[in-house]
Amino acid sequence: MPDARFQPLPGFRDFAPADCAVRNYLFNAWKKVAHRYGFLEWEGPTVEATELYLKKSGGELPTQLFRFTDQGDRDITIRPELTASLGRIAAAYQREYTKPLKWFEIGSCFRYEKPQKGRLREFYQFNADILGEASAWADSELIALAIDCMRELGFTQNDFIVRVSDREAWIRFASEHGVQEQDIPAFLGIVDKFERDRPEECQRKLDAFHISRGDLVAFIENPPAGASERYDILMKDLTARGLDGYVKLDLSVVRGLAYYTGLVFEIFDTQRSLRAVAGGGRYDTLVGALSNNAVDMPATGFAMGDAVITHLIEQTPHARALKDAALASAGCDIFMVQASESRRAEVLAIVSALRDQGYSVDLPLTLTKVNGQLQKAVKSGARAALIVGDEFPVMELRDLGARTSSPVAMDDLFDAVASLTGSN
Amino acid sequence: MPDARFQPLPGFRDFAPADCAVRNYLFNAWKKVAHRYGFLEWEGPTVEATELYLKKSGGELPTQLFRFTDQGDRDITIRPELTASLGRIAAAYQREYTKPLKWFEIGSCFRYEKPQKGRLREFYQFNADILGEASAWADSELIALAIDCMRELGFTQNDFIVRVSDREAWIRFASEHGVQEQDIPAFLGIVDKFERDRPEECQRKLDAFHISRGDLVAFIENPPAGASERYDILMKDLTARGLDGYVKLDLSVVRGLAYYTGLVFEIFDTQRSLRAVAGGGRYDTLVGALSNNAVDMPATGFAMGDAVITHLIEQTPHARALKDAALASAGCDIFMVQASESRRAEVLAIVSALRDQGYSVDLPLTLTKVNGQLQKAVKSGARAALIVGDEFPVMELRDLGARTSSPVAMDDLFDAVASLTGSN
Repeated sequence: MPDARFQPLPGFRDFAPADCAVRNYLFNAWKKVAHRYGFLEWEGPTVEATELYLKKSGGELPTQLFRFTDQGDRDITIRPELTASLGRIAAAYQREYTKPLKWFEIGSCFRYEKPQKGRLREFYQFNADILGEASAWADSELIALAIDCMRELGFTQNDFIVRVSDREAWIRFASEHGVQEQDIPAFLGIVDKFERDRPEECQRKLDAFHISRGDLVAFIENPPAGASERYDILMKDLTARGLDGYVKLDLSVVRGLAYYTGLVFEIFDTQRSLRAVAGGGRYDTLVGALSNNAVDMPATGFAMGDAVITHLIEQTPHARALKDAALASAGCDIFMVQASESRRAEVLAIVSALRDQGYSVDLPLTLTKVNGQLQKAVKSGARAALIVGDEFPVMELRDLGARTSSPVAMDDLFDAVASLTGSN
Repeated sequence: MPDARFQPLPGFRDFAPADCAVRNYLFNAWKKVAHRYGFLEWEGPTVEATELYLKKSGGELPTQLFRFTDQGDRDITIRPELTASLGRIAAAYQREYTKPLKWFEIGSCFRYEKPQKGRLREFYQFNADILGEASAWADSELIALAIDCMRELGFTQNDFIVRVSDREAWIRFASEHGVQEQDIPAFLGIVDKFERDRPEECQRKLDAFHISRGDLVAFIENPPAGASERYDILMKDLTARGLDGYVKLDLSVVRGLAYYTGLVFEIFDTQRSLRAVAGGGRYDTLVGALSNNAVDMPATGFAMGDAVITHLIEQTPHARALKDAALASAGCDIFMVQASESRRAEVLAIVSALRDQGYSVDLPLTLTKVNGQLQKAVKSGARAALIVGDEFPVMELRDLGARTSSPVAMDDLFDAVASLTGSN
């Protein structure tokens, strides 16, 4: 247990090495899958002019900003999310890259919220976006990436579901039911709250539009064929990819933020025991809005935070086992044991030579008993211990996994180490 | 050129993918070497209570803080450096890890400074520290790591020098020259400014201690044998490691920050055309101070920022060539070309199968002419293009480097791709 006297600020986290290794396991999975999909990594500044977020925002975000005045009297904000910077940077650099831009980022985000399980004031977010392509094929590529991130972490069809919806289907529904264009955001707000509102509350809101809640329920539960042409194209694509089993149409998904324009989706654990693992969708007008209409780029993207997915890994036995196996091999290759005070120079020469070959090597930084050094070697998770003493140039190479030992001469050292660590 | 209308705040940077790849090249070098040295990665929060930095500080840091009051009325600071968090976290977790702790971090830091070449308001810092070990062997391990980070980036003995000094030697010098213990920080401040101050200015300051500048010069230029016992042990260790040629004793180095206690060092380019590339040293009392003396741990560490080292890579031809070669192989393995509208399902099935094998694959997200797709493939730096058209299950596999093409049947695809990309 960490010493409680030395805590970070509420809602902020310390990653001591064991926790940082879990974080890196997640980051590596995200990066690996993004790379397989041909996405390029980008990074924006951690602090932006507040104006950028206010231009984009919607929902409750403006009340949760870490917003300050800096020493130069600028109104600045520590980023609450990554898409605003993406829009700004994509607008700045779009001429230099072939479109569509397939870009991803992993970065810290900051929101002043009440800290609780799965909700932090600083959290990591993985964002993947495709800019400059309006087709449903782009949505298919993006959703396939999201699914493969889950698969990479060991999750199966039994563990999660991608709920896909289409705002355009709702916009058509609304206009068929007489909703005026300027009222559509308010109407979508009602759909967004549909699952959480009590039925009478929902109906009361719908009364303003002379629509019955029953019509909403029917549309969600039995979407008419062709309700969303884009969804049909998406499903054809995902079926050809072998990924259709991870997805279902669920028109109750609308997503709160005002800037979504088309297909939207959310990933949930199948038990729905946690908040959404990821969410995203099409935002064809955002880059235009962020650039004051100087640059117009259709776009689709999603974000996956680190907190919920980490909980889900922990509560899903096969995903947890996969993570534990990945972390178990984190110890160094060779732990040097200096059995004689006079052998310091030889120990150091061997350490340098092994490290130059790419091995991870630890060594004593003070002279202690051989047994103490060996205990440390075992505790550190090293694969092997190399004991250098008075018998040098003959040494002892100990396999700490198999608990076997063999003498090794200086001339045979590299071969012996390569065969023990499995690197040849 | 990026569009100048969409700029970040002054002193902050955008990393579009080409710039992010350079950043990642540097991060990967740091991580690789740290891993070879058996250092474990940790990460702290980006925001801490301001008090933590004021406890530690020294020098000009307090005037450069991004310091604010949050919505909960807390005095908070966006971190200007990483060592204060390290001290706090090491104190919290020290019982859970075997000592010495060999820990590293790569993180963003923030200082409100006048932006100029090599000085930014947000920059990355690589920190490596050894806590819980007071020996000079620990300093040797740390300085060897710093040298190997430079070597990993392609720098040679002709390109950089590690200037090592020892505050203890100066403390001894001071007391031999009658400086009272409480005046030693002021005296070290004079030594720290020795190179920058005009001689008369330096002598004027020294007058308070009745010391002549000539004595300082003599001590720096001809350090007496045994001036620093720790330096002698360090050099013996570095010689055994084959790294002594990168290091020289230079007593003019003191380093401004008040918390250093022993061996200190700085890395400079040999031309001294840039600011220090890295700097660090022993800070045996800092963890005690940060933890209100609850935890006492000797420590040694250094920091390397990303800005100066990136300039040095650019101005050093062989280091730049190494970087360029590493970045040149960044394109995806296979760029899919869909030559017939009817082959979408086959293209997608192949994409999924190749990605599941670990290949990086890009694909068309809209239907365009075959030539346009091939041009994109070449421009993206992909190694190969796979053309799927009406002749399916026979396809065309094009080696975009060698500019050769061959027909490939579906059954032979994996073998052909493996042999072309060199992954079998």
